[in-house]
This record gives sequence, structure tokens and C-alpha cells, in this order.
Amino acid sequence: MGAIGDNYPSAVLREAVDAISSLPGVGSRSALRLALHLLKQPKENIHHFAEAVNALADDVHYCRECNMIADGELCGICADGSRDHHLICVVESVRDVMSIEATGQYKGVYHVLGGIISPIDGVAPSDLSIAALVERLQRMEGPVEVILALSGDVEGETTSFYIYRQIEGLAAKVTTLARGLGFGDDLEYADAITLGRSIVNRQLFKV
Amino acid sequence: MGAIGDNYPSAVLREAVDAISSLPGVGSRSALRLALHLLKQPKENIHHFAEAVNALADDVHYCRECNMIADGELCGICADGSRDHHLICVVESVRDVMSIEATGQYKGVYHVLGGIISPIDGVAPSDLSIAALVERLQRMEGPVEVILALSGDVEGETTSFYIYRQIEGLAAKVTTLARGLGFGDDLEYADAITLGRSIVNRQLFKV
Repeated sequence: MGAIGDNYPSAVLREAVDAISSLPGVGSRSALRLALHLLKQPKENIHHFAEAVNALADDVHYCRECNMIADGELCGICADGSRDHHLICVVESVRDVMSIEATGQYKGVYHVLGGIISPIDGVAPSDLSIAALVERLQRMEGPVEVILALSGDVEGETTSFYIYRQIEGLAAKVTTLARGLGFGDDLEYADAITLGRSIVNRQLFKV
Repeated sequence: MGAIGDNYPSAVLREAVDAISSLPGVGSRSALRLALHLLKQPKENIHHFAEAVNALADDVHYCRECNMIADGELCGICADGSRDHHLICVVESVRDVMSIEATGQYKGVYHVLGGIISPIDGVAPSDLSIAALVERLQRMEGPVEVILALSGDVEGETTSFYIYRQIEGLAAKVTTLARGLGFGDDLEYADAITLGRSIVNRQLFKV
């Protein structure tokens, strides 16, 4: 197929393609395909699509406790009395919460930072909800465990260390995710750093 | 990464993900990524995106001559007096017009069918703008050439044949796209049907 180039037959179509191709990972060719697909749909479907997008701007709230996306003042997890509110898992983003929730293994609550400290990307500690975490811990009664569940790269380690310095003394226990070989992983294919740390941090064999 | 599953923290987010994943080729995981990307944008960007989509429903017209997407009554090509209005290229879709325009080789006008005859997909001749093509040819004065530029598969051939039967007598000449090996193609890698037709439809060698 030849290149489509700049031969848009309609300014409206061009605007839609420009908007759609502003999404990450969507090129102008895919955007055109998606715009023409939308165009073929009944008007009410197109309006519904636009409304769902608009609602992202207008109707999304952030939980006043944990900074998670919510439909009201509190997110469903913070509003859930059956969860352990003295176990707080600190994560970078909403996606991380969803990934951990999907495991079904965690019954505590969360604190969503909204990013990770990264001087290269211009993200400073003050851009993240770290001060809110400190205040949250100051407000709490009884011993609290904070799990730092950030990524294992330099930014993640830096952010974990920064937060640790801010909250030590406020949390009874600060933990981090276990790292090592994945379950079912073959030693042969593991990267050297992961394998090395798996040996250093070896655990008692349980039967 | 684990599966995200159904743990949406917000009904608004879920609605947006559902809407975005209704697009062809966009799974729910990509849709979530796109929705969270939108969510991070300034409100006015999100509104702009939604408006561009809404405009597809509200502001797109179809050219009364050729059925092409247009911003007004006539598309830019039909409104262009410098094009040859007695050379009409019949295509399946808007994308085909854009592909042919991108070649810069065509100075005639178009007729967009809006699909192709396909009993399996439930597309009958009456669903396409074939009657409009017949009327258009009846209105015209002077000899007209119609190029049937449809795909080379069974549906395309069927549609070409159907249209040919409808318009023979109305057009001075009915032609179709040249088919054969692509320019620069290696014989070794050509499929047998294309190569066979290239031999049968061989052309005089020009120097």
C-alpha cells in the first residue's frame, strides 16, 4: 500500500486523526483506520465514545486517602472495612494497584505515588504524593507496615530510599517486594543480576 | 505482568476502557494504557480529543457527487475545476481515494461505493452507491471513462462485474487497474496467479 500522505479529504477527519494519533503507540496510519472505523458507526456510538473520554476529564476523582482513581471521595479499597488498613502498599501507578489486585493475594490498602522520582524526566519528590503519605502515617494509630512496591530499576530504588528516609519512625515496619527467579523460571534463562540476588537472598527451604 | 482482570477502580475508567477497546485491533490492556494516558493529560486536551471524535458524528458530510467524505456539499476533488470530470474512478472506500491521491498520478474524479458486494457480510448492491453512479452517468454530457479500481479478490471481481452490467452503454469506456508484478518485484517471489496473469496480459516493450 502506498503512503496516505497529507491528502485528507476533510478537515474534520484530519482533526480526528491528529487527535487519535496523539495517543502513545498510535501512528497516523492506524489513527486513520480507527477514525474511519468510528465514522462508520451509528452517531450515538460515536457520541458515547466521546462522552466516555470526556468523563475522564470531568468525573474522575482521586481518593483522599490513597490517591487512587475513584468515582467519589474515597476509593472502593479504602472504603472497604474488611481490608487491613494498617498494611499500606506504596505503588507508582493505578496500573500497579490493578495488577496486585488481580493476584488476589493482598488484603491491605494502597498509596499511589502518581509517578517515580526521575531527575531526567523532571519528576521531583514534591510532584509525587509522598508528603500525603507522611501525613497519612502521622494520622494513623497503632503499628503500620508499609510495603514499598516500586520497580527494581534505579528510579524505583531511589524513590524507595527517599520514601524510607521520610517515613522511618512513622511505620513499625517497612518492607519491599521479594525479588528473585520467577516461579517456574529456568536458571539457564535468568539474567545474571536476578540470579545473583536470588542466591544472596536465598530463603529457608520449606516443606 | 499479571492480568489486569476486572478490578477497575472507577466506573468512569471502566467505561472509557470499554469504549476504547471497542476500536478494531485495540485490546483491553492497550485500552487501559490509552485511557490512563489520556487521564494524565490536561483537561482541555481530553476535551479537545472528545470534540474531534464528536465532530466525526456531527460535522462530516458526504459529497453529493461522489459520496466521498467532505466538509461541505461537494468534496475538494469534485469542486476542483482543473480535474477531469469525465474520468471517474470507482473505489470501495475513502482510504482508496487517499491512496490513489498520494500517488499523484491521477487527475480525474472518484466515485466512492462505501463498501463491496459481499453476501457473507450481508452487503447487497443496494447498500452501496451504485444507483447514484448510474444516475451520475445519466446526468453527464460527453464521453465518460469509468475506471473500476476495486480489489482483485472474489468480492471485488463480483462488484466490478455487477457495476459493469449496470453502466455499460452509459460510459464510453470502462477500464480496470493494470495488474501484474510490482515494479522492482523479483519473479522468484511472485505468487503463481500474479505471475501467470502477468504473462497472459503481457504488454509491448517500450523503449
